[in-house]
Amino acid sequence: MIAGPGLVFVVSGPSGAGKDTLVEALVERMPRLRYSISATTREPRAGERDGEHYFFLTREEFERRLAARELLETREYGGNLYGTPRDYIERSVAEGDDVILKPEVNGALAVKAAYSDAVLIFVVPDRFSHLRERLLARRTETNEEIAGRLEIGHREMTFVRKFDYLVVNEQNRQEEAVRDLQAILHAERFRIHRYTDDSIEKVQSS
Amino acid sequence: MIAGPGLVFVVSGPSGAGKDTLVEALVERMPRLRYSISATTREPRAGERDGEHYFFLTREEFERRLAARELLETREYGGNLYGTPRDYIERSVAEGDDVILKPEVNGALAVKAAYSDAVLIFVVPDRFSHLRERLLARRTETNEEIAGRLEIGHREMTFVRKFDYLVVNEQNRQEEAVRDLQAILHAERFRIHRYTDDSIEKVQSS
Repeated sequence: MIAGPGLVFVVSGPSGAGKDTLVEALVERMPRLRYSISATTREPRAGERDGEHYFFLTREEFERRLAARELLETREYGGNLYGTPRDYIERSVAEGDDVILKPEVNGALAVKAAYSDAVLIFVVPDRFSHLRERLLARRTETNEEIAGRLEIGHREMTFVRKFDYLVVNEQNRQEEAVRDLQAILHAERFRIHRYTDDSIEKVQSS
Repeated sequence: MIAGPGLVFVVSGPSGAGKDTLVEALVERMPRLRYSISATTREPRAGERDGEHYFFLTREEFERRLAARELLETREYGGNLYGTPRDYIERSVAEGDDVILKPEVNGALAVKAAYSDAVLIFVVPDRFSHLRERLLARRTETNEEIAGRLEIGHREMTFVRKFDYLVVNEQNRQEEAVRDLQAILHAERFRIHRYTDDSIEKVQSS
């Protein structure tokens, strides 16, 4: 149980399912939702800003934070380290804001292990055949990298049952997926286990 | 597990919490949501129509249906029998429509026992002190009846933890409660246990 009234939402799923755009749209529309920024040792790409897209760290600083248990989960990809800073999440929920993360599938399960109340949402594209097109359209990776990510995508599907929700992001119907996610974020606040016994007692006696 | 792709939603809670108006608003706004009409042996009140507000049955006919297991749950109130016809619910979900019921709290738990996938939502007024005012404003019951119902209201709160959601219907902020309920009805469709293994398999292999 995380301290504070904010909730933690995790959006994960195969690469290229459109998670980035969906999460951006949610953060834009929901005033009390913050995006959890990852830390990474990789070089910034063109247009990426420190503290906005990532916290860009030296490997030394990354490892110091890892040793100090300041990172919730970490992963290595393409020779670089990525991780989720704990303090940003805990500060946000303590202040009553919700936080949304979009780690890899393994990272999502690590977040759930740390915060049992976190809500895990798996997003898939309508057809895996579209996934390849989306990755190609990004043009930031080589064909070999894309092939590698597609394989991971199929393997990730075996984790689906460990998630709380599954949302399909259909091509040309992204607005629907955003609204599905908004409903999930809204509804989760009213689940009975979110209420303390005290708050139910208060309703009874008032 | 109920057959068919529609979901069963149960809205319950203390009398006078405003459930009737909330459920009416939901049915009006959500095109694939049907209201489950109760059967009763009581006389129609002014303005009540058979097959719309209730199925008005003779006691003989009610008991015949009860014996034939055509009623999902029954209750006695003010010397009259009330019950939930099974066939209407099962026909609706088989056709892909969602169904919403608003039984007493005991009835809600009986629905859950019959359909384990049903979603139970407890609605309370913001303060129990308002409950008395709302019941008085209805002017369809005597003061003794109101006092009796208030007592039931307090007792019902002990069932809260058996529900899936708790929504507070604040005075003069009913639109918020309607939107909370809409989000719950929308989000429930995406919960992971709603997906069959086949449908997940299909996403994987497509």
